[in-house]
Amino acid sequence: MPTKTAKKTSRRKSATVAVLQRVVIEDVKPQIDGGAFPVKRVPGEYVTVTATVYADAHDDVEAVLLVRRRSETQWREIPMRRGINDLWTADFLIEHQEDYVYTVAGWIDEFSTWRRKLVKLWEAGQDVRLEMKVAAQLLDTAAVNVNGSLQDGRWLKKWARDFTREGDVFASAYIGMSRPLFDLMKRFGERKSYRRFTHELTVRVDRQRALYSTWYELFPRSWSLTQGQHGTFKDCERLLPELARMGFDVLYFPPIHPIGSTHRKGGNNSLTAGVTDPGSPWAVGNTDGGHKAIHAQLGTLKDFKNLMAAAAKHGIEIALDIAFQCSPDHPYVKQHPQWFKWRPDKTIQYAENPPKKYEDIYPINFDSDDYQNLKEELKDVFVYWLKQGIRIFRVDNPHTKPFPFWDEVIGAVREDFPDVIFLAEAFTRPHVMQRLAKGGFHQSYTYFTWRNSRHEFREYMHELTRTEMREYFRPNFWPNTPDILPPHLQHGGRPAFMQRLVLAATLSSNYGIYGPAFELCLWEPFPGKEEYVHSEKYELKDWDWDAPWNLKDFITRINRIRRDNPALQTTWNYGPCESSNENLYCYHKATADRGNILLIVVNMDPYQTHSGQVCVPVEELGIGWNRHYRVHDLISNDRYTWYRDWNYVELDPFRCPAHIFKITWD
Amino acid sequence: MPTKTAKKTSRRKSATVAVLQRVVIEDVKPQIDGGAFPVKRVPGEYVTVTATVYADAHDDVEAVLLVRRRSETQWREIPMRRGINDLWTADFLIEHQEDYVYTVAGWIDEFSTWRRKLVKLWEAGQDVRLEMKVAAQLLDTAAVNVNGSLQDGRWLKKWARDFTREGDVFASAYIGMSRPLFDLMKRFGERKSYRRFTHELTVRVDRQRALYSTWYELFPRSWSLTQGQHGTFKDCERLLPELARMGFDVLYFPPIHPIGSTHRKGGNNSLTAGVTDPGSPWAVGNTDGGHKAIHAQLGTLKDFKNLMAAAAKHGIEIALDIAFQCSPDHPYVKQHPQWFKWRPDKTIQYAENPPKKYEDIYPINFDSDDYQNLKEELKDVFVYWLKQGIRIFRVDNPHTKPFPFWDEVIGAVREDFPDVIFLAEAFTRPHVMQRLAKGGFHQSYTYFTWRNSRHEFREYMHELTRTEMREYFRPNFWPNTPDILPPHLQHGGRPAFMQRLVLAATLSSNYGIYGPAFELCLWEPFPGKEEYVHSEKYELKDWDWDAPWNLKDFITRINRIRRDNPALQTTWNYGPCESSNENLYCYHKATADRGNILLIVVNMDPYQTHSGQVCVPVEELGIGWNRHYRVHDLISNDRYTWYRDWNYVELDPFRCPAHIFKITWD
Repeated sequence: MPTKTAKKTSRRKSATVAVLQRVVIEDVKPQIDGGAFPVKRVPGEYVTVTATVYADAHDDVEAVLLVRRRSETQWREIPMRRGINDLWTADFLIEHQEDYVYTVAGWIDEFSTWRRKLVKLWEAGQDVRLEMKVAAQLLDTAAVNVNGSLQDGRWLKKWARDFTREGDVFASAYIGMSRPLFDLMKRFGERKSYRRFTHELTVRVDRQRALYSTWYELFPRSWSLTQGQHGTFKDCERLLPELARMGFDVLYFPPIHPIGSTHRKGGNNSLTAGVTDPGSPWAVGNTDGGHKAIHAQLGTLKDFKNLMAAAAKHGIEIALDIAFQCSPDHPYVKQHPQWFKWRPDKTIQYAENPPKKYEDIYPINFDSDDYQNLKEELKDVFVYWLKQGIRIFRVDNPHTKPFPFWDEVIGAVREDFPDVIFLAEAFTRPHVMQRLAKGGFHQSYTYFTWRNSRHEFREYMHELTRTEMREYFRPNFWPNTPDILPPHLQHGGRPAFMQRLVLAATLSSNYGIYGPAFELCLWEPFPGKEEYVHSEKYELKDWDWDAPWNLKDFITRINRIRRDNPALQTTWNYGPCESSNENLYCYHKATADRGNILLIVVNMDPYQTHSGQVCVPVEELGIGWNRHYRVHDLISNDRYTWYRDWNYVELDPFRCPAHIFKITWD
Repeated sequence: MPTKTAKKTSRRKSATVAVLQRVVIEDVKPQIDGGAFPVKRVPGEYVTVTATVYADAHDDVEAVLLVRRRSETQWREIPMRRGINDLWTADFLIEHQEDYVYTVAGWIDEFSTWRRKLVKLWEAGQDVRLEMKVAAQLLDTAAVNVNGSLQDGRWLKKWARDFTREGDVFASAYIGMSRPLFDLMKRFGERKSYRRFTHELTVRVDRQRALYSTWYELFPRSWSLTQGQHGTFKDCERLLPELARMGFDVLYFPPIHPIGSTHRKGGNNSLTAGVTDPGSPWAVGNTDGGHKAIHAQLGTLKDFKNLMAAAAKHGIEIALDIAFQCSPDHPYVKQHPQWFKWRPDKTIQYAENPPKKYEDIYPINFDSDDYQNLKEELKDVFVYWLKQGIRIFRVDNPHTKPFPFWDEVIGAVREDFPDVIFLAEAFTRPHVMQRLAKGGFHQSYTYFTWRNSRHEFREYMHELTRTEMREYFRPNFWPNTPDILPPHLQHGGRPAFMQRLVLAATLSSNYGIYGPAFELCLWEPFPGKEEYVHSEKYELKDWDWDAPWNLKDFITRINRIRRDNPALQTTWNYGPCESSNENLYCYHKATADRGNILLIVVNMDPYQTHSGQVCVPVEELGIGWNRHYRVHDLISNDRYTWYRDWNYVELDPFRCPAHIFKITWD
């Protein structure tokens, strides 16, 4: 549980580091790769710091957490609490959107050691007159440390004098064991063998939306009012009221840049495009321009800015997809041929996944000798859009670019635009995903899409929220994307879509859907693949957004529940609950003050009704053992009164595959 | 399983570190506190190194372990094996008694990446003529790296030429996929993005006895031939043949220095000593001298050297107990009063554990302003005895002295006397014990004495052998000491002594007993304490070493088993086995080559016969599933034939509470 952080800054001018370092400070956590990378927070979140602190012999040790905002020069001291096995703990609240620095200090507390001895001697009825004189020396030393606080200094000096008078030993011992003296000595007593932990560790503080965001992805070109015509930014403006009603606050577009025509892909990723085929937006660049230009059919920069402004009025931010790769027609190819990989036949190496070839895409060669200029130009792509007002980027395949590139680019961009948010689309191996998050990406795509059973979810949620990843990796859960139509959505029908929505929206405070494929329950795959047939990546689509089976109202309800319940606005409060039926996945989410407590139960089987008992951790949640409490299903509006831990639930996936219970009691 | 270590040193002159570090090397293990402390080995042991190594994109990564002896300048390269989740592993054998240094390097292997692509294209029947030209460039670059190996360079150049000839594509592709070229390119191919791990890590190599030793502790003064007289080093000489027969190789004496007379303790730690009371050997120093002197009643330095020489003939080393504390009569008190803590009444602070006072002992004050001289003098105590021939020290209460003191003293002593062994008698909190081991102590007392149930032992052995402690903390198991008579030995009778002996001697390759209290099954405590009544610490004892209930032959047998079975000469091969009866603790120990396999079963209940099934991991031990195998009890000499994993055992503690089965099969 968080403690109130100390407000006052230490009065101590400087604590000199001891020559003989009797105090050991080990295993300070959180500490990512020995402090090489920061931990991440948003304002309002706590950082809980633990450290193993101890010394030789039997003297009392004291430990404090030292914290400052990066711009501050003075440390704030927060006392740490000692637990078992020399483990000390303290936490601090992030109050400002600025990076913080923290470390741990420890020392030997001679007065506390002395006081413990005094109590023992006193209880054993022994003569303590000599001991009082020992303490007098400690008090005298402390009195020297008192700067400015004259009254405190006077008391210390007076008591030091009193302690030397053997006749007053009873009164002196009483003072010696008293709280006021103890507190004074904590403040001013000599810090013997004072030592700081070797590293200063960093908290990177991002804005709120880095932790809590609700994404909607769409292809603007499919939203023309006229069937078969290329949609525009203007067309998108009319979608904003409905997207806002549905509860989305990030509207994310695939690349909006000019699309190459050389080797353009046709429908269903075919090698030859018809004259009307619009091409994949990820084949970036043509003679009109590259990553800083806008595809002419979408509109002008002015149209785009108008859209951003209109979106802002609905509380929606536009997110851009930045894919650092080029169509053969991209201006870079002629202007900077050295940024590509050349083959012995004087052609540029196109993208491939042997034996598959993607001749419409030239990867950028980061091993280029001209890397510095390349890096500056690519950084400038972000800066260009930031200057137009964009603050959120979804980065395509960041794992195919060197990690130091992202470290440097995101680091530099963030200095000038601290509100920027980068989402890493890295569907790759665990360490690579983690390294990108460590290196600066604010949010990350995850394996959510491929987790199925309750067991798999429990394991994955444990990994995300109960291991070191919790400190630096913010998940963003996507049930589908234009690239991914997972098997359960191909086969599970509408109940599966509802189930995945509830899971994504309640397990992770950042989630998104690719629409309207999602809310229209689009299920048909390209045969044998986890991809959509007739993918929107290569075609204009003509969506019937209001088809009768659409899930818009359900999504609206779920997002409304997210907005109304702060317990769903963070990912880190996830707590698994037991259930008697392995098809029922149950977990709770509660705010730190328990002012908002939710219990979510999801039927993981989209075909069958399942029932069973779920276990509410009534003690942990503060309900207590012997109390009736109300559970109010925020989806169905049903209300029940429950008692003690195990209670009955039944979920028919064709009605609704999930409960989101709000728990209250008198 | 260890691999054969590569013999050849890399031919590469120097691998330049890449500017753009695409390769990540993380979490190199073993690595104690970020490399602040070394891991420990003796010659013949392996170090298994793991690291997470990966890069961006989809290129093949290669990783090597770099190893050298500290005196060498050139690294030896050992290829690492890639496991799941980007975890790489390699191990190396410690062949010399010298410290080793290791680290990990990784790079991108362009040829291997290319070859993987070639295979895919070839299998898909695609044109690879251009690919062969790409490879030709890689081969040409490699040919430049060939230093001295002219023939290799000629082949590379020839094949590079061949690869550019389109007519020979079938032959070229065949060569391109061949093993000889692959091996050549592993040796000479360009190491793109080459990078070394940030730290160089150290292996501290000690001599064999640091890992495998059998200790016997006795008070020389109790071994006079004449009853009531003070024993001498000469008296001890006649004990050597029997101690050697019993299988001990370290004979450890409590402090042999002059004993103070001021506030000398009498029998049973009483405050007043009679004129004949010899005093505690831990009250070090009187007018005859201090830590470099010998208590006159034990003999002269010459007698002591004679004893060492006689012991050596029996394969026994003498270990000295160094207790850095002084009796009030110690010469330091007058010569170096600044090394003690002075109280306001101008007296020196004696030892205390309030409200208990130990006025016969002055602790040394390591916070002294004269610390540097103090440290030099105390270091010189070790050097003095090392010069007399002593190589093993048991250090009394090292945890009450500052850690940096031990780091420096042991570090310095070890430079000049690499054969030295320090045993830390630190019965204290876990982190403190661990820190002393990290700081240089070769062996450590443990919590063995206070572990009772099978569950407790399994947990503790896991901690010692399967966590990071395994790398730097060598346990030394003691069933009893002059200070500790644990409850199970007070109540369990002779079976308990036999049980504890087998546990200590087979779980840990370092173990010791305080004799002859142990083999005479001395059980009577000081009332209400875990200490002996009439403790030898304060009295001369008159031992009847051959009392009929003595365990000497049993100890002889157990130590003989240790000597004959290399599986018991290391602690790290401990493997727990399941058993159906929780009173039966079963574990196996086997050499790495499985040439020596033991299965130990101990009845943990000293009162009752217990029987049950124990599970032999037949696959893991290489026996195989469908084979009969022999188990030969090396204690009782009984032999059985067993089949498959679960087999029956029965142990009557009054006959013998343990089996030590040697497992063999045809």
